[in-house]
Amino acid sequence: MHRVYRSRWLLSGVSLAVGIGVGAALTRAGDRHNKAQDTSNGLLDRIPIIPIPSVDAATEITQPGQIAVNKSTAVTKYGLPSLSNIKSRESYVISYDPRNRTAAWVIEQLNAETLTGTSDRTLSEFKEDDSVHVYHRSSNEDYKGSGFDRGHLAAAANHKWSQKAMDDTFYLSNVSPQNPHLNQHAWVNLEKYCRSLIKDHHYHNVFVCTGPLYLPQQEPDGKMYVKYQVLGQNHVAVPTHFFKVLILEKPGDDVELRSYVMANMPIDEKIPLERFLVPIESIERASGLLFVPNIMKRTSSLKAITAGP
Amino acid sequence: MHRVYRSRWLLSGVSLAVGIGVGAALTRAGDRHNKAQDTSNGLLDRIPIIPIPSVDAATEITQPGQIAVNKSTAVTKYGLPSLSNIKSRESYVISYDPRNRTAAWVIEQLNAETLTGTSDRTLSEFKEDDSVHVYHRSSNEDYKGSGFDRGHLAAAANHKWSQKAMDDTFYLSNVSPQNPHLNQHAWVNLEKYCRSLIKDHHYHNVFVCTGPLYLPQQEPDGKMYVKYQVLGQNHVAVPTHFFKVLILEKPGDDVELRSYVMANMPIDEKIPLERFLVPIESIERASGLLFVPNIMKRTSSLKAITAGP
Repeated sequence: MHRVYRSRWLLSGVSLAVGIGVGAALTRAGDRHNKAQDTSNGLLDRIPIIPIPSVDAATEITQPGQIAVNKSTAVTKYGLPSLSNIKSRESYVISYDPRNRTAAWVIEQLNAETLTGTSDRTLSEFKEDDSVHVYHRSSNEDYKGSGFDRGHLAAAANHKWSQKAMDDTFYLSNVSPQNPHLNQHAWVNLEKYCRSLIKDHHYHNVFVCTGPLYLPQQEPDGKMYVKYQVLGQNHVAVPTHFFKVLILEKPGDDVELRSYVMANMPIDEKIPLERFLVPIESIERASGLLFVPNIMKRTSSLKAITAGP
Repeated sequence: MHRVYRSRWLLSGVSLAVGIGVGAALTRAGDRHNKAQDTSNGLLDRIPIIPIPSVDAATEITQPGQIAVNKSTAVTKYGLPSLSNIKSRESYVISYDPRNRTAAWVIEQLNAETLTGTSDRTLSEFKEDDSVHVYHRSSNEDYKGSGFDRGHLAAAANHKWSQKAMDDTFYLSNVSPQNPHLNQHAWVNLEKYCRSLIKDHHYHNVFVCTGPLYLPQQEPDGKMYVKYQVLGQNHVAVPTHFFKVLILEKPGDDVELRSYVMANMPIDEKIPLERFLVPIESIERASGLLFVPNIMKRTSSLKAITAGP
């Protein structure tokens, strides 16, 4: 038994109960620049308009997408959500956050090819990322006895195609402190769901961008605070939440967008995954990243899934 | 009367009492990689060795520095502490932090030329930075009624030489929420001190890099947490501390480094400024930035001032 409602976190632009995503599309019409008129209801009035049709709009992709076949270059097909401290690895591209000693985001590409192979995760070991300056790097020691798992951002099991690709997911730069129950239950279910989109639902490519969030929360004094634990001698940040943004290529070159947020705490795995869907713009606001402008360079329209399949 | 000791914040690598900098050089010998042996005394054992001679070492600059005369390019003479979201303005170069809606750092160059002129700050107005995406931008509205000043990072009074240069310091990207007492007393004294180094102490150039810090603090549960308020609908981060890193060019091409940290709270202005000096590596650890490697590309040695003049 795990409590899933405990307190209110605010994902910028969206009220978000801990452990439960927002199941309905919250995007609504409104002039985001007209601030003089939106002081009463706060955040919900300020959700911006961006050119993503709702789930109900049957949109056509007018510029056909390309099926990406080369893993190392195609992972950037829909752009990068920021350009800070980028590194390219065998299995992913990462933007590193040197202040928080973990990634800002990691993007990877899943398809029939990457999910197939004989790579063995028992041959992989978590390791410091020597490409990060020693001042800004996390170590295995930081996690020891902390009560947190070393949670993969790009998942190891997504990269069966190459032992090197799987090994690369074990760099601690691709890892954030994650609640063990979350890591081993609801989160791994979300990772499995990503793979099932290829295996069982016949998507050609699934681009997955994963990262930490540090969301503010209202305290009894009525003010909003960001608060997160830091681990070990290197002060590795413990995210309050994690996001996964999925860009899906369907047969016929349809492009879909699904974006999830889960709180970094035990989450009852009986809760359907679509309950954790949130509007992409709420992740863009909270993370300081931008996904949609780059995606829109590759497709003139996009179907954003905000209320489950 | 203001309390200056209230609780213990930790500047990575340095114990730092709130409101008081570390007056003595804390850098000590030790193998930073020898982690197995440094579990007992915690952070102080892990302060790294970097090739900065102590204040006592009389060092000679073997590669003569150049006196920078062109403001717009010379501000980067000693490099940039990061390469994320860089913008160049008339009076400074800025790295913007889109998640926290304020700068990560701002670097400017002070010399006899920049401090001379007739620019009038009453002609300047705080303004949104339209070059930042609306999701990640702060507004004047965010500050209204918050109890925090709009604290300049690059100071307006450093740029008398050009009204445009002074105006540019009023972009809200160059502003962080700052305790009003700090902003109007101890902090402004530190800014005045930077200018006095040119006017009264005959330095040729003073490169000033200013930015926010979000330092962890131990809570009653024994764990370390980063906690900071966020303001307004855009969730503008209120830094727990601010840093200023000064790179000083003296006659004879000596280069000095002075780095200060002040807590974002009322600070008794009777406390001498040198009490707020900290080792540069503690700022590098806490901020996720690097100053020294780039500086060392321009000079083979450097005199780090850690215990005041």
